[in-house]
Amino acid sequence: MQSPETFPAFADEASLQLRGNGRLRHLLTLKGLQHDILLELLDAAQQFVTPAGSIAARNDSLRGRTVANLFFEPSTRTRASFDLAGKRLGADVLNLDVNTSSRKKGESILDTIYTLQAMQVDVMVIRDASAGVPAFIARHVEDHVSILNAGESDISHPTQGLLDLLTIRQRFADFAGLKVAIVGDVAHSRVARSAAYGLHTMGVTDIRLVSPAALAPGRDEMPFAERIDDLDRGLRGVNVVMALRIQRERIADLDGIPDTGEYFANYGISAARLAIAADDVIVMHPGPMNRGIEIESTLADSARSVITQQVTNGVAVRMAVLEHVLQSMAAS
Amino acid sequence: MQSPETFPAFADEASLQLRGNGRLRHLLTLKGLQHDILLELLDAAQQFVTPAGSIAARNDSLRGRTVANLFFEPSTRTRASFDLAGKRLGADVLNLDVNTSSRKKGESILDTIYTLQAMQVDVMVIRDASAGVPAFIARHVEDHVSILNAGESDISHPTQGLLDLLTIRQRFADFAGLKVAIVGDVAHSRVARSAAYGLHTMGVTDIRLVSPAALAPGRDEMPFAERIDDLDRGLRGVNVVMALRIQRERIADLDGIPDTGEYFANYGISAARLAIAADDVIVMHPGPMNRGIEIESTLADSARSVITQQVTNGVAVRMAVLEHVLQSMAAS
Amino acid sequence: MQSPETFPAFADEASLQLRGNGRLRHLLTLKGLQHDILLELLDAAQQFVTPAGSIAARNDSLRGRTVANLFFEPSTRTRASFDLAGKRLGADVLNLDVNTSSRKKGESILDTIYTLQAMQVDVMVIRDASAGVPAFIARHVEDHVSILNAGESDISHPTQGLLDLLTIRQRFADFAGLKVAIVGDVAHSRVARSAAYGLHTMGVTDIRLVSPAALAPGRDEMPFAERIDDLDRGLRGVNVVMALRIQRERIADLDGIPDTGEYFANYGISAARLAIAADDVIVMHPGPMNRGIEIESTLADSARSVITQQVTNGVAVRMAVLEHVLQSMAAS
Repeated sequence: MQSPETFPAFADEASLQLRGNGRLRHLLTLKGLQHDILLELLDAAQQFVTPAGSIAARNDSLRGRTVANLFFEPSTRTRASFDLAGKRLGADVLNLDVNTSSRKKGESILDTIYTLQAMQVDVMVIRDASAGVPAFIARHVEDHVSILNAGESDISHPTQGLLDLLTIRQRFADFAGLKVAIVGDVAHSRVARSAAYGLHTMGVTDIRLVSPAALAPGRDEMPFAERIDDLDRGLRGVNVVMALRIQRERIADLDGIPDTGEYFANYGISAARLAIAADDVIVMHPGPMNRGIEIESTLADSARSVITQQVTNGVAVRMAVLEHVLQSMAAS
Repeated sequence: MQSPETFPAFADEASLQLRGNGRLRHLLTLKGLQHDILLELLDAAQQFVTPAGSIAARNDSLRGRTVANLFFEPSTRTRASFDLAGKRLGADVLNLDVNTSSRKKGESILDTIYTLQAMQVDVMVIRDASAGVPAFIARHVEDHVSILNAGESDISHPTQGLLDLLTIRQRFADFAGLKVAIVGDVAHSRVARSAAYGLHTMGVTDIRLVSPAALAPGRDEMPFAERIDDLDRGLRGVNVVMALRIQRERIADLDGIPDTGEYFANYGISAARLAIAADDVIVMHPGPMNRGIEIESTLADSARSVITQQVTNGVAVRMAVLEHVLQSMAAS
Repeated sequence: MQSPETFPAFADEASLQLRGNGRLRHLLTLKGLQHDILLELLDAAQQFVTPAGSIAARNDSLRGRTVANLFFEPSTRTRASFDLAGKRLGADVLNLDVNTSSRKKGESILDTIYTLQAMQVDVMVIRDASAGVPAFIARHVEDHVSILNAGESDISHPTQGLLDLLTIRQRFADFAGLKVAIVGDVAHSRVARSAAYGLHTMGVTDIRLVSPAALAPGRDEMPFAERIDDLDRGLRGVNVVMALRIQRERIADLDGIPDTGEYFANYGISAARLAIAADDVIVMHPGPMNRGIEIESTLADSARSVITQQVTNGVAVRMAVLEHVLQSMAAS
């Protein structure tokens, strides 16, 4: 693991999210999150995974607790996933779309947070387009409130990272020897960053960030990973491919890639391109997919795809995180 | 009942909604739905009806189950009705307004459905302005998911049809000898179609579709019903009048009916016009009403009106359908 | 207390909200609400207040009951407060944002209400920008439905008034000798009106309405209170200061107060201005605050501020009111 000094901007988040007893209080970032806590969360999440077609796991461990979903950016799937996670643990769930009400009156984010805190909300799930918002909120709430980052700018999406790790672990017993390619608009992807930090902590040494040069992450980021701009080189021998969602506007700005068809030809993940990967390769995507742009549609629906399993694991991971931060409070 | 061959476009829905054991899995359409299943649903719904002013019926038969309301068209009453039906059976209910989030990112309907399925949603309640969407979804979901049509284009609104049948049955012991007039914009009414098919299956032989010629349904539709363009002829001797909601824009397009006042004079249901109906006539409307356009306001609030009873029955019917499709799964 | 005749416009609300047995059925206004009922509600609410940082109070007294939040005006905090109050009593809560659905179809308020009533909703929580709407609705619903006013034009916000009273009572054992200043845009404030009527009924005789002349309430309103346009005179010796939210547009219209800075200099509540108040003075604000305009930001976060306690009390008050109106029904 990188020492905290290597990531000055993140050092604070990594320590901020722990209680004095070393347990997780907030979940802000996977960067710097200890291996034993990651493992514990994955083990707990696995307990909430039931086979496809069976009834969802459920208990009442959060009965009497309140979870508020504060989404300052629109979202269907992540919000639904947190909503179900809270409800399946018996919590009261408050869904606030803050775009459409508070901000009309110019209420500051902090005053909204103080209000929810005073209403005895126990966990606030935050999505925001601006960097630093979850940590900013975490620095200001009282001891009895936990903050979960549900997507922060291009920077962090830790529950997505956890669900990616869980999905990989369900297929591969050991992380140590894995080769993983994360492909697409890495520069703007919080999914890529959270996955990369999580994989690094779990011991994966061959992490490849594959993208056009214009969409590569900063040179000082994720030094443990290799930057590659050629897809064939990136896919050679990999066990895991994570395709990233790309916004069409970003493609329009790329030199030498005039349209989405050309993007697919260069960076789209397809069965044909995967001939070069390991035989046991699995294909992941955080959703929602642009079928035919960053991923071949038939591949997304094939046996190699674990994309729907990622969604199932997402609810399980969020249940595990909710339980963990509330139990760590009781134990503190 | 019409043979399936008579309705090629619908044949698939009618069989698609049944399990191998002949039980209802999805509720897509009343067209072709067997008489015994209709009866069973009406009997079950009646058990959930409590007198006005009493506390709503409630049980925990859906505890641990998840119902997602996916409304691709705005709705207050139908969505609230399904929301309450799910909650009063103890289900976790997920309300998704898909206009405002997923579609912004261009996610396809099917990928939204696969996502909810992977989140172990048991029942998806779908409203969509496009024809065929509920059946399309039903064809793609896994065995453990049930699809309920909550309003589909001009075509089908089966829970509305069921609540209409239940309301009629609460007043009239037997369907066989009833005369029923469905009045207004039949051409564009999913309410009219679902009611007509349901009435036909229940044995009503005198079904009148009363509308200006321009708003009559297609010649090949509902051959068991009579098309009438004169309201007095349509109302003569009827026991049941269903007034349909009309959109003002549609009136503007009618020849010889220059405004809403003229529409009311020609096709509005009023106490005066009902002098020609049976003494025991009841008046129905699916809501929301345009008072003074398709229905006289005082009539809507009179003792002949069963409009609020329809709303009460709507929750009961939706509870019955939710229980039925989940129990039929357990039995399969 | 003023005799009902003094307030012809309100006389009806005050009696309308009581059952024949003298118990509260609706909560429409604090104006004319009896002292014993106020006391009873405050006592009941106090039972729901738990210390900051502890788990929220909860019981299942409303299990099987349905509460509908009908907000015809946008709101985050009041709606969230009612939502949590209902859920923490075990009710099924239906949140309807009526702007975005029913009104699109032109459904009248009353038909929406009749629909919810027919769905066996027990309590409807109404916020509306127009005067008289909650009372209008209360006049039309059946005996088994209770209406709670969650904010009505500039006129009434009774649960806010109750939470203000509860907050004051937690600091001061007795209302009788208190001096209270309500400062800001009194003319347009439902918060000011509900607080003033509540304080008056609780026996406070020194109530000061402090505002620029242009924002003073009508001469015939609240005759028990003193109108003051000088802040220093208004604050002299007071135990309680309630700062009101002001809209920036209103400041722009004030003579001699060209901007928000000048407004703060003249009517903003700050630690310096409070030197003239009693030593034990507390500062209140209904939220959301315009920090630096009607209230000094550091003062809002200081030990004198009870603003977050107001929010906590808000949930408790709403739980008490929900329980009260449903129990009064059972007893009637």
